[in-house]
Amino acid sequence: MTTSAQSAPGLPLDMIIFGGMGDLAVRKLLPALYMAHLHGNLPPGTRIVSTGRQEFDRAAYLAFVEEKSRPFIADANFADEAWRGFLQLLEFVRVDVQQDDLAALAAASRAGAERVFYLATAPSLFTTICDKLAAAGLVDRHARVVLEKPLGRDLASAVEINEAVGRHFAESQIYRIDHYLGKETVQNLMVLRFGNSILEPLWRAPNISSVQITVAEEVGVGSRAGFYDSAGAMRDMVQNHLLQLLCIVAMEPPTSLAPDAVRDEKLKVLRSLRRFNLATIARDTVRGQYTRGVSGNQEVQGYLEEPNVPAGSATETFVALRAFIDTWRWSKVPFYLRTGKRMGRRSSKIVIEFANPPFSLFPEYQHGGAANRLVIELQPEEAIKLQLMAKEPGSGMHMQQVALNLDLQSAFSQRRAEAYERLLIDVVRGRLTHFMRRDELEAAWEWADPIIDGWSTLAEQPRPYAAGTWGPPESFALLARDGASWVE
Amino acid sequence: MTTSAQSAPGLPLDMIIFGGMGDLAVRKLLPALYMAHLHGNLPPGTRIVSTGRQEFDRAAYLAFVEEKSRPFIADANFADEAWRGFLQLLEFVRVDVQQDDLAALAAASRAGAERVFYLATAPSLFTTICDKLAAAGLVDRHARVVLEKPLGRDLASAVEINEAVGRHFAESQIYRIDHYLGKETVQNLMVLRFGNSILEPLWRAPNISSVQITVAEEVGVGSRAGFYDSAGAMRDMVQNHLLQLLCIVAMEPPTSLAPDAVRDEKLKVLRSLRRFNLATIARDTVRGQYTRGVSGNQEVQGYLEEPNVPAGSATETFVALRAFIDTWRWSKVPFYLRTGKRMGRRSSKIVIEFANPPFSLFPEYQHGGAANRLVIELQPEEAIKLQLMAKEPGSGMHMQQVALNLDLQSAFSQRRAEAYERLLIDVVRGRLTHFMRRDELEAAWEWADPIIDGWSTLAEQPRPYAAGTWGPPESFALLARDGASWVE
Repeated sequence: MTTSAQSAPGLPLDMIIFGGMGDLAVRKLLPALYMAHLHGNLPPGTRIVSTGRQEFDRAAYLAFVEEKSRPFIADANFADEAWRGFLQLLEFVRVDVQQDDLAALAAASRAGAERVFYLATAPSLFTTICDKLAAAGLVDRHARVVLEKPLGRDLASAVEINEAVGRHFAESQIYRIDHYLGKETVQNLMVLRFGNSILEPLWRAPNISSVQITVAEEVGVGSRAGFYDSAGAMRDMVQNHLLQLLCIVAMEPPTSLAPDAVRDEKLKVLRSLRRFNLATIARDTVRGQYTRGVSGNQEVQGYLEEPNVPAGSATETFVALRAFIDTWRWSKVPFYLRTGKRMGRRSSKIVIEFANPPFSLFPEYQHGGAANRLVIELQPEEAIKLQLMAKEPGSGMHMQQVALNLDLQSAFSQRRAEAYERLLIDVVRGRLTHFMRRDELEAAWEWADPIIDGWSTLAEQPRPYAAGTWGPPESFALLARDGASWVE
Repeated sequence: MTTSAQSAPGLPLDMIIFGGMGDLAVRKLLPALYMAHLHGNLPPGTRIVSTGRQEFDRAAYLAFVEEKSRPFIADANFADEAWRGFLQLLEFVRVDVQQDDLAALAAASRAGAERVFYLATAPSLFTTICDKLAAAGLVDRHARVVLEKPLGRDLASAVEINEAVGRHFAESQIYRIDHYLGKETVQNLMVLRFGNSILEPLWRAPNISSVQITVAEEVGVGSRAGFYDSAGAMRDMVQNHLLQLLCIVAMEPPTSLAPDAVRDEKLKVLRSLRRFNLATIARDTVRGQYTRGVSGNQEVQGYLEEPNVPAGSATETFVALRAFIDTWRWSKVPFYLRTGKRMGRRSSKIVIEFANPPFSLFPEYQHGGAANRLVIELQPEEAIKLQLMAKEPGSGMHMQQVALNLDLQSAFSQRRAEAYERLLIDVVRGRLTHFMRRDELEAAWEWADPIIDGWSTLAEQPRPYAAGTWGPPESFALLARDGASWVE
């Protein structure tokens, strides 16, 4: 229903992956494409053309995929025949995009094919790749390009990337991917909000007292320190993933599910986010950096001891902040955002905290007590829970907290799809709804830039937190000030 | 928290059952008292004194209970030691309340005991029993009397009973029992409504589009035809059980759970029920009577063929009606009430039907489709379900109906109590909240009387429906007119 002008059923599809040897392609894209193939979601005649600098022939590439990608397919999903069929779709074209033109790729791509270019490379190559794709005559009106984050490190660099890609691709051909938007629970949140009559009347101040969005990683910076140290958690997570989740929670009902109808509403949220100033940065944001600690029963080193982290780095590995959306709907409702590496455990979730009943009939809860919550869990498992108070069974009128579960894991185990599979199918079918539009991306930077600049102006040093904990104490204090607390 | 003035912890309890040989005592009360004993909910020193006309001694009565009551205790709840302990609490006093005074009972009841009189007899004996209890000096300020339905066959006869009982017992000593108010799900509905912040804002017009209350029995009139034919479904079910359920759904939040605070709110609902006139009786009520049919895979006879039913009886075994409550909260919201014998199956439930979303983003549901519902099932199992639309897993944004279950059966199997057990414990503890007050009972008759009289004036013959079906076609038409339909 959200098919854009580029989808042309009937044309064969060439899915061309730049960075075909990289971690993203090997661990995420190829397994997701295999799953799409397994589920019959790739159009007949699809070919997947990976590119890379290595001197591989096709056989060597297939062996590489067999070795590197197959372990990322769950046993339950592995079917020998489907896997062999999938490998038959794969081609490999050796190309060094910084050195070569794309004649070899043009020769490998079928004339008249619908082409999807997946740029799973460093963003610094985006401009070059797009220019060369156009020069090789590969960009026609059916072509689509998929861009992976990071899309810039501030507004100016994001504009630069957008301009460069936009020279060759219309906005409706550009798929800026944020895999959080591909998660079942995140997409389900839109259906829950707008497919039911009972949530929308509640979905506003003062019925909702606060919203929490947590994206907690258990891992440290790992091998990404080189990139990570120049970015930090704000750029790496908050500006994209957390803000996108916030948009899905906060947006007004769109007029339809058409891509621009949805993205117009998300844009309005981003533009309604209250801007921070130095005073509110100091009061309402917390930067943290992990120190030595225990994570997953193992002693692990602090951020400053990780390989490739510059001595004395002040990069944040944790951010917590208290944001406001200046609209009628969200007046005075704090949105608490939090993300970090080396936290207690991997856990991503959105918590919609409803106001306490204005008056309690039940003496044991007359002083507050457990509020109603809608909890949308994204990681490690996807689940949706509605926390209510119900009667404790038996004699008397005592309350207890119960959870109504919409357990996506068990209810739909057959038909679940991972975020990348879902989003790749959207790309194949030309559905832009779950991808970021240029103005959204830039609006997110417009909000984030002053915070990052403000930290620099204030010379805010990150607060230490031991690896394996839930961040620095200042993060807890941020909520305690409002009488709130993080829901673990 | 809702203890009345009569509860006097410390005094031994004498639970005196009139009609101790009757079906109610044998099948419901004694098993419920056993369960209360098993669960440690009877105060130490409790005695249960059954009365009856039979020439039994205590041993004969215990044998009778062993034979007749024990089969009504589920195996899972049966514990040999508890059962023997329970039998030790039992006494039997032979008395013919129409002939004898209650000197024998007075002799058997301990001086200074807290006395609960459970009148499990025909209501025609209530006046006599109460008079004789008082004459025997058994009614003191600690005494309580429990009255079983039917409490009258119209307002005048209900007033008569209330006056007679009221001569000896203060209103706070009178427990008018409606076992539907003892059901876990019904009591839970009060907790759900008033213990959560998210239901109350939705709990009104126009968020709720209609309410359905069904009490469907699979059984026919059985051995009760003698009584039943002079009553009919309106007196037997609607005036009491269905209206009580309607009150719990519709009442405003009480100021506390104190008995009179709750009962004041229920009374307001009963008094706000729109009165029927001949025109609305003809349009908005349906009477039915079952004919020969198939029930539970067995061919069964029609009502007119049942033993002891007078030839050509026009008594209704089915009622459906469309009621309105004239308050701000319930303006224009139809309450569909339905009850009948020999229906498709035993099923009692309350369905809160929420309005459709005013606008649907999801094309497959643009013409209405499945609404949100809260379904409170009372029989055969107790369960609470919230029906929502959620995303169909996988690619695309398609909806499917899902149910969030609060499954009381499995979640709390250990600690469940049957309605009678729960209500008996309330009586023992002096908690009046879940019992009907005199003015409630009379207000229910004030609403019901004109309907019964109107049927007579209009010479409405009951519409036939085959046993094993869901009532006459007029019942379906009643809802279809509003674009609604019964939820089976």
